[in-house]
Amino acid sequence: MLAGGIGGARFLLGLRELGHDVTVIGNNGDDITLYGLRVCPDLDTVMYTLGGGSSVERGWGREAESFRVTEELTHYAAAIGADNAADVPTWFGLGDLDLATHLLRTAWLRDGVALSEVTRRLCERWPLGVRLLPATDDPVETHVTLADGRTVHFQEWWVRVHADVPATRIEFTGAATAGPAPGVIEAIVSADVVLLPPSNPVVSVGAILAIPAVAEAVRRTPAPVVGLSPVIGGAPVRGMADACLMAIGVETDAGAVAQHYGRRPTGFLDGWLVDDTDAAAVEPLRKCGIACIARPLLMSDLGATTAMAQAALDLANDLRT
Amino acid sequence: MLAGGIGGARFLLGLRELGHDVTVIGNNGDDITLYGLRVCPDLDTVMYTLGGGSSVERGWGREAESFRVTEELTHYAAAIGADNAADVPTWFGLGDLDLATHLLRTAWLRDGVALSEVTRRLCERWPLGVRLLPATDDPVETHVTLADGRTVHFQEWWVRVHADVPATRIEFTGAATAGPAPGVIEAIVSADVVLLPPSNPVVSVGAILAIPAVAEAVRRTPAPVVGLSPVIGGAPVRGMADACLMAIGVETDAGAVAQHYGRRPTGFLDGWLVDDTDAAAVEPLRKCGIACIARPLLMSDLGATTAMAQAALDLANDLRT
Repeated sequence: MLAGGIGGARFLLGLRELGHDVTVIGNNGDDITLYGLRVCPDLDTVMYTLGGGSSVERGWGREAESFRVTEELTHYAAAIGADNAADVPTWFGLGDLDLATHLLRTAWLRDGVALSEVTRRLCERWPLGVRLLPATDDPVETHVTLADGRTVHFQEWWVRVHADVPATRIEFTGAATAGPAPGVIEAIVSADVVLLPPSNPVVSVGAILAIPAVAEAVRRTPAPVVGLSPVIGGAPVRGMADACLMAIGVETDAGAVAQHYGRRPTGFLDGWLVDDTDAAAVEPLRKCGIACIARPLLMSDLGATTAMAQAALDLANDLRT
Repeated sequence: MLAGGIGGARFLLGLRELGHDVTVIGNNGDDITLYGLRVCPDLDTVMYTLGGGSSVERGWGREAESFRVTEELTHYAAAIGADNAADVPTWFGLGDLDLATHLLRTAWLRDGVALSEVTRRLCERWPLGVRLLPATDDPVETHVTLADGRTVHFQEWWVRVHADVPATRIEFTGAATAGPAPGVIEAIVSADVVLLPPSNPVVSVGAILAIPAVAEAVRRTPAPVVGLSPVIGGAPVRGMADACLMAIGVETDAGAVAQHYGRRPTGFLDGWLVDDTDAAAVEPLRKCGIACIARPLLMSDLGATTAMAQAALDLANDLRT
């Protein structure tokens, strides 16, 4: 499964219930360096969520989290000159417990340890029940050009600006030359099923597929590739995926997202699940060669999420036979 | 004034009461990189103590401090393989508030900002009432060779081992080629008085004087140079200065410490204050050309500390005329 952050992690909770051997290819596009620390929000959201350490209310970060370090950084920012305070990105609320993860990751990266091995080490603390691989060990970051002309890190647009300023361009910096992390291609080409969860199709799954070797593996794997729509009734289920879709000129519509992914082998999909409310999208997609079914796609609880995962696997089975 | 950590900072509280224009040359020898963060314990102890942010009980670190990040790092260390856990220096208890200082410092250093400018920026948050300069902008660290043959960072010996294993050698790595930070030499040669506070004479004041240009400035400044003994009645007032003195073959004795500093211009002292209980050291030192007086040297409260500072300035005045 290719995974973004909150949506991908929640879907994985359901998928894990089915007891299969799951490899998660995590998104590095959200990665950002703050105060010199390498932060990998999507990898950590998967790790904390499956490891039982995530905040249930927020969906990201740690439960029982505190923000004393960030509060103190805010005090510094208020006390030092405005020019220097601009260097203090307190808009990204790094939690104290979360910081421990970033400190360890950064220290190991600086020692020359690859991100995939760093991730493996960090996951020893968290009983995930799945194997988590970053898509790449190379530094990649998603950058966004705003309507006002500025180009900022995706996180700055997403977290600081709350995507209030429209984006005119989304660029996966470093992705074109990034290589897949060890095990990524093998996992995709030897899989029984490849799943695209209801994650953000642009900045989560799209950022993973921006890595050429990963895209190529998804296109040529003998396994069926099945995705689930993150859009229900013309709106993203969570987050601001519509702002990302708008930036790349794709309608916020369950069928349009499937068309954006495209049919293999030029695109990435064999099958696609839309929510029951989007059943009208089924026939048009089938005519385009994408096997589409409608099912309830709200991850309202673990049971509903598990049923979604099972429905996706069932569709994959139908495609295989 | 040349300053180490706790002793130097406490002495400065008294000196500051006298209302003079004070420049503090801080010790970089204790500096250490932990998790990739540059930590300057002595500079920070001066900053927090004079800025009113230090822990009164501990003497170092921040008041109302918490250790959630370090606790979480400890959890990681327990969960990951022993080989990797060895990379996790949880023996150095980095406080959450303190971490904010190190994060900012490290981010600025990585941007190419000199430590002296970084220190100036950090001090904008803290109303010190004195000017704090690091002795050098170059990376220096004190390393200690132990009786068991290992060479470790001073902090590892001091904080982790509590100096329980004797040291056979103390080395100021990088000091011989380190240049003085901007303003350091000017402050020393234009001062009315240069003070060596009752800091550790080996790893605090000694580490500063290991920088050749600083030592030379102290030797040739027209100002009188007066020191205060950190040893009273054959024992260090605080800390484990005896372990450091033993490592360099100097007796833990108020007179022996003065002899170790030596008389200018080959050494560093014109005058020396010993505690009343060490009055026997006065005459022998005077015979060696070091103007010595006995005064109460316990920094038991602010009044006592202020009186010590005044006594040191009075002695300097006597030496000047």
